[in-house]
Amino acid sequence: MHNSYLSLDPWKIIEEGFDPENHESSESIFALGNGKMGQRAMFEEKYSGETLQGSYIAGVYYPDKTRVGWWKNGYPEYFAKVLNAPNWIGIGVVVDGETLDLHETKVSNFTRTLDMQYGVLERAFTAHFNNGAEIDIVATRFISMAHDEVGAIRYSVKPVNKAAHIVFSPYINGDVYNSDANYDEKFWELVAQKADENTAALSSKTRKTDFHVGFAMKAELAGGTLESATVVDRAEFVGKDISVTVQAEETASLYKYVGVASSMNYEKSTVLSQAIKVAESAIETGFDALLEAHQNAWTKIWETADIKIHGDVAAQQGIRFNIFHMYQTYTGKDERLNVGPKGFTGEKYGGSTYWDTEAYCFPFFLNTADYSVGKQLLIYRHNQLQKAIENGEKLGFHSGAALYPMVTMNGEECHNEWEITFEEIHRNGAIAFAIFNYVRHSGDHAYLASHGLDVLIAISRFWAQRVNWSEEKEKWVMLGVTGPNEYENNINNNWYTNKMAAWTLSYSLEAIDWVKTNMPERWSEIQQALNFDEAIESVNWKDVIDKMYYPYSEKKQIFLQQDNFLDKDILPADMLPMEMRPINQFWSWDRILRSCYIKQADTLQGFYFFEDEFSDEELERHFDFYEPITVHESSLSPCVHVVLAAKLDRMDKAYELYLRTSRLDLDDYNKEAAEGLHITSMAGTWMSVVEGFGGLRVKNDQLHLNPKLPAAWEGYEFTVSFRERTLNVDVSKSGTKVSKLDGDSLEIQVDGQAIQL
Amino acid sequence: MHNSYLSLDPWKIIEEGFDPENHESSESIFALGNGKMGQRAMFEEKYSGETLQGSYIAGVYYPDKTRVGWWKNGYPEYFAKVLNAPNWIGIGVVVDGETLDLHETKVSNFTRTLDMQYGVLERAFTAHFNNGAEIDIVATRFISMAHDEVGAIRYSVKPVNKAAHIVFSPYINGDVYNSDANYDEKFWELVAQKADENTAALSSKTRKTDFHVGFAMKAELAGGTLESATVVDRAEFVGKDISVTVQAEETASLYKYVGVASSMNYEKSTVLSQAIKVAESAIETGFDALLEAHQNAWTKIWETADIKIHGDVAAQQGIRFNIFHMYQTYTGKDERLNVGPKGFTGEKYGGSTYWDTEAYCFPFFLNTADYSVGKQLLIYRHNQLQKAIENGEKLGFHSGAALYPMVTMNGEECHNEWEITFEEIHRNGAIAFAIFNYVRHSGDHAYLASHGLDVLIAISRFWAQRVNWSEEKEKWVMLGVTGPNEYENNINNNWYTNKMAAWTLSYSLEAIDWVKTNMPERWSEIQQALNFDEAIESVNWKDVIDKMYYPYSEKKQIFLQQDNFLDKDILPADMLPMEMRPINQFWSWDRILRSCYIKQADTLQGFYFFEDEFSDEELERHFDFYEPITVHESSLSPCVHVVLAAKLDRMDKAYELYLRTSRLDLDDYNKEAAEGLHITSMAGTWMSVVEGFGGLRVKNDQLHLNPKLPAAWEGYEFTVSFRERTLNVDVSKSGTKVSKLDGDSLEIQVDGQAIQL
Repeated sequence: MHNSYLSLDPWKIIEEGFDPENHESSESIFALGNGKMGQRAMFEEKYSGETLQGSYIAGVYYPDKTRVGWWKNGYPEYFAKVLNAPNWIGIGVVVDGETLDLHETKVSNFTRTLDMQYGVLERAFTAHFNNGAEIDIVATRFISMAHDEVGAIRYSVKPVNKAAHIVFSPYINGDVYNSDANYDEKFWELVAQKADENTAALSSKTRKTDFHVGFAMKAELAGGTLESATVVDRAEFVGKDISVTVQAEETASLYKYVGVASSMNYEKSTVLSQAIKVAESAIETGFDALLEAHQNAWTKIWETADIKIHGDVAAQQGIRFNIFHMYQTYTGKDERLNVGPKGFTGEKYGGSTYWDTEAYCFPFFLNTADYSVGKQLLIYRHNQLQKAIENGEKLGFHSGAALYPMVTMNGEECHNEWEITFEEIHRNGAIAFAIFNYVRHSGDHAYLASHGLDVLIAISRFWAQRVNWSEEKEKWVMLGVTGPNEYENNINNNWYTNKMAAWTLSYSLEAIDWVKTNMPERWSEIQQALNFDEAIESVNWKDVIDKMYYPYSEKKQIFLQQDNFLDKDILPADMLPMEMRPINQFWSWDRILRSCYIKQADTLQGFYFFEDEFSDEELERHFDFYEPITVHESSLSPCVHVVLAAKLDRMDKAYELYLRTSRLDLDDYNKEAAEGLHITSMAGTWMSVVEGFGGLRVKNDQLHLNPKLPAAWEGYEFTVSFRERTLNVDVSKSGTKVSKLDGDSLEIQVDGQAIQL
Repeated sequence: MHNSYLSLDPWKIIEEGFDPENHESSESIFALGNGKMGQRAMFEEKYSGETLQGSYIAGVYYPDKTRVGWWKNGYPEYFAKVLNAPNWIGIGVVVDGETLDLHETKVSNFTRTLDMQYGVLERAFTAHFNNGAEIDIVATRFISMAHDEVGAIRYSVKPVNKAAHIVFSPYINGDVYNSDANYDEKFWELVAQKADENTAALSSKTRKTDFHVGFAMKAELAGGTLESATVVDRAEFVGKDISVTVQAEETASLYKYVGVASSMNYEKSTVLSQAIKVAESAIETGFDALLEAHQNAWTKIWETADIKIHGDVAAQQGIRFNIFHMYQTYTGKDERLNVGPKGFTGEKYGGSTYWDTEAYCFPFFLNTADYSVGKQLLIYRHNQLQKAIENGEKLGFHSGAALYPMVTMNGEECHNEWEITFEEIHRNGAIAFAIFNYVRHSGDHAYLASHGLDVLIAISRFWAQRVNWSEEKEKWVMLGVTGPNEYENNINNNWYTNKMAAWTLSYSLEAIDWVKTNMPERWSEIQQALNFDEAIESVNWKDVIDKMYYPYSEKKQIFLQQDNFLDKDILPADMLPMEMRPINQFWSWDRILRSCYIKQADTLQGFYFFEDEFSDEELERHFDFYEPITVHESSLSPCVHVVLAAKLDRMDKAYELYLRTSRLDLDDYNKEAAEGLHITSMAGTWMSVVEGFGGLRVKNDQLHLNPKLPAAWEGYEFTVSFRERTLNVDVSKSGTKVSKLDGDSLEIQVDGQAIQL
């Protein structure tokens, strides 16, 4: 089942025929990246139609002055914008004096292909010029996964009917802007540029943040008869005009090798020379060898990350698309980076880090890659702990209590809606849970001593200060929060948040115990450094855990999303007229707030995280209450419901919800692919298959599987990395086969049975 | 007691000595207005120091594009800005070639005086020029209360030591801007200008709203020896340069007469000629006769509006300052106008109409002026009913349900904070209450039939749709509101709002009954026009009234401000460290929200409106619970507490709170007088004295008084207009004396005793 202008294929995304209406969506969908840099699938040559130019360098951002209607105390001064960087893919093409521009030039046999297996973007078409020339063009490019500062393009032309005179103009253009700038400011400033026969290069720096990035290109021609080559050196624009005569049916290829070096990794003054060095080395290596190394790197990723789905090519394409973009966005090589909500496919939402990382992306990397990858995500937060403590202080917390920001680039908060920035504090819990999840999965308790405990204690201190004692209820309550369901604001006693707070306190006490028992000297160090008073803090935390208030309905025997939730009109979402859906497009905010409708899993998110605390009957009761009133208007929502529905053996429901996530961007359900992909929710698709259908869990140091097969599929396979082993799980109508691909022998649980591998 | 750079005087505001630091505050405090136009007290001559230029024409606004950080469905497209209009007071002064500029020129004996009795602003000083000239200057101006399109200035100079050559340059300058423009747009465009020997005039129009305003000036000289007069006619700038030689100790006066005519009252094409006509008529009448008419008009206002306070000149000055500015802002002559939060003293907050009008200003005008004045405020809302219904529709209400906007100029909402715009819906109730208050005071029940019922029914329909049935509570509840206490957002069952809703429904049913009984044909008309189905709507309304939910604590025997209010830490505000006050400057918004602190009377606002429903014991219990946690960080807050404290015989508390309101701007407690005065809260000061200390009420068609005397005062007098009579109430240590100044005989209640007047 698919509903798209794109063709189905298990490994490729294919667009046949060129429709400018789809171009901006395709720029997102066909985007390339390697964790360090990335780019929307803009055309190399001129395109005068609608396009969203976006070329991004991981970690390079601009603090755009915050824009609000009404300022509130505590709002951050700026919003970290992902920056559209100088354009390095540009290659102008002029044929017999006429510029190639797919908005003007007639085109036939257009195919755009993203090969996800090898990470290669290819565009093939025949251009029909007004002057009569007909040229077959194939443009192939990749951003190297093996050499992560290298981009390479092969741009091939073949005159069809007669010889043609062609000018290739490869260039680097520093004059770029962000379409989402708040005050139309320019974010980049040129530092230096240089252009000669061999090299064109420029370096730019970002205003305020002073990131320096160097871009260098080398070009070479294969085929055709070179007529002339001219250096181009204009303001913020360097390149070369290469004139060539190409005979009919002869192929001439322009190779463009680009090096990108940023001050994230080099001295500012050297980024230009470093970029040139990288470009030089790339051209020496050559296109084919670079491509091979790149393909090998992707092959390695797929070895542990692939999911095969048999009997449903749309689902197969969808899941690979999600996995592919996850690894294009984040590779775990740099602890300063994170998983941006749009990755390298767009600018929307700015920032780089949301709680999406810990709640959704983290399990994906934990299970599909070496533990070092997931661990980097934990260390990212560890490194930003001091800023999280300062963020807490701004809001009136003290004594080392940390509130991690809702949206951040460098650890400072940059979101400014009071109901989110100040109140959606459950994000803090997800960070603690990720530490727990990592240790549970890897068995690496030593991480608690080296990094985890600092973070856990700081977050726990926040929770202990954030609750207050209700004389009325004789319980600890938590007032004025926004839960994961952002269609409720400033509510009291959000069950999920209260639960998360109490759980964090418990786990922190457990973690303290582990370190105290196993590494007593390290515990002394931590205790001293954090000025941690067990007699006061531990005792207080235990009291909060014991006497935390959880809103509950005796009548319905369910935990309530928040205080007084049952005062609402509770009506199933499928009774809403279609013309009111999604409600966030048709209802005013107050109407949404006082409705019962849930944007994304909230109470059920807690049932997902803490499933062992609840019986199946409890889960069923809560699922039956909350699922019908959940409108899933966040892309992060359905996956959690899939996992729970599958657990309840409601495979039809699970599959129905799964379909909403797996091809969200490919089929563009929300008509917003043009502005970038839903990168962080892509991990949810993986979660749906592996944790939902596959029933994968780690409990008591063992891997558990409880695979179920959606009726629509013949079978599926996935790979899991678990404690130095790689396992393949093959689920089909005839049963489940688990095989160990490498590592020592291992006992796992399949459908409740111990199995020795 | 006062804490100001201003001197005490019972009728005057006096600034002695010129300190540029205070200049912008003085521009606000010394502002002039006549209900139709007004102006900050900028200098006539050049001033190169800090100044906030503000000259305003009532009803003339600009719809500035709304600016928000994050857009929510239902937000208005624009925010109505009060417009700084072309400057008509300007008079350049050059003495022996040197420009008079108080930022540069040395000045001595500076006095600025606002005569509140007669509405005249006078500035006297000696200017010491670098060139040796010393000139005594007296600038006198007023905006005529008698001829409300006329402004007049007498600018007198007297050389002290030697003759001087002086150039007066009276002008009108159309090149003005708003300091609060969201996108730095220009709001005015020149339409026409003309300048000749006799007249200088220009007309401008506002962008988008297309208001046209004409300004014309005539100037004449008295004294001195005229040397030459030159017409000035530059882009958007017209005037005259008048050169004159003035002998030592001789006085030369330049008289400037200005006419202002707007398309609120004339055809657009005629505003220029109308303005010229007005200026011509003014110069013919002459300064002294204009001044006399103006003074007489003020005398007439004071006859029914003055409050005398004996034995406390600071309080005397404060109360008159408040009354004076109220009448400068609103005179009740035009049903399209209202009482802007800053009046004609500044631009902040934009819009013109808040619920302040009905809740605070309305009782002031009802008691101090002819009923026609207060009635205009009701008709203003009546005329905007259709827009209020459309506003309701935008938020999902239907069938003629009206939600009046939070902030408006022309009936459309222009505020955009979801928690206020969509949720601070109690404003609707204040509009219904004002109708009730008017009818109660005046006995004019016929108003219900002519205007009131349409509005009451539309508001009642809103309330009936805004509640929902809680299965849990088996009551009607109202979810997601913001009460008068804006330090709580999106709360459930705000007692005040629920109370207001149920009361409105009751009063609407009562009003329907009155019209049905007394004017049955009119009722049929209304019923048909509004498609009002008694069998359904009246029955539903009665059910809502009967089964409305009111949060209540059995233990404390108090109504709770909202659901679960007692979950908060309840700590008296005086335990807050001073460095945290006001909390809105030092606390983040979430901390304010989850604290118990109340910005302004909320539950107690209901006790004020509906006092007869509660016993003194109940009032006392609620006052003792809520007053200690009320931080009064809205200027609208203390007055309500004064009235209730006085009722409870807590005169010390009442007086302490009274002091916070009476000299709020004069003593500039909040350090914000520079941006304009707190016009609407000024009515609260009157309310404190007359309803609080004086105990004035209207019940059962009778006027009740229950006067109490603050210990600090020897006595006070106030005047009340009541049903064609004017009464003087004189309270002193020896008792209360009420005298009737005009009208038929009347029985009133004083301290519970019937008295025949």
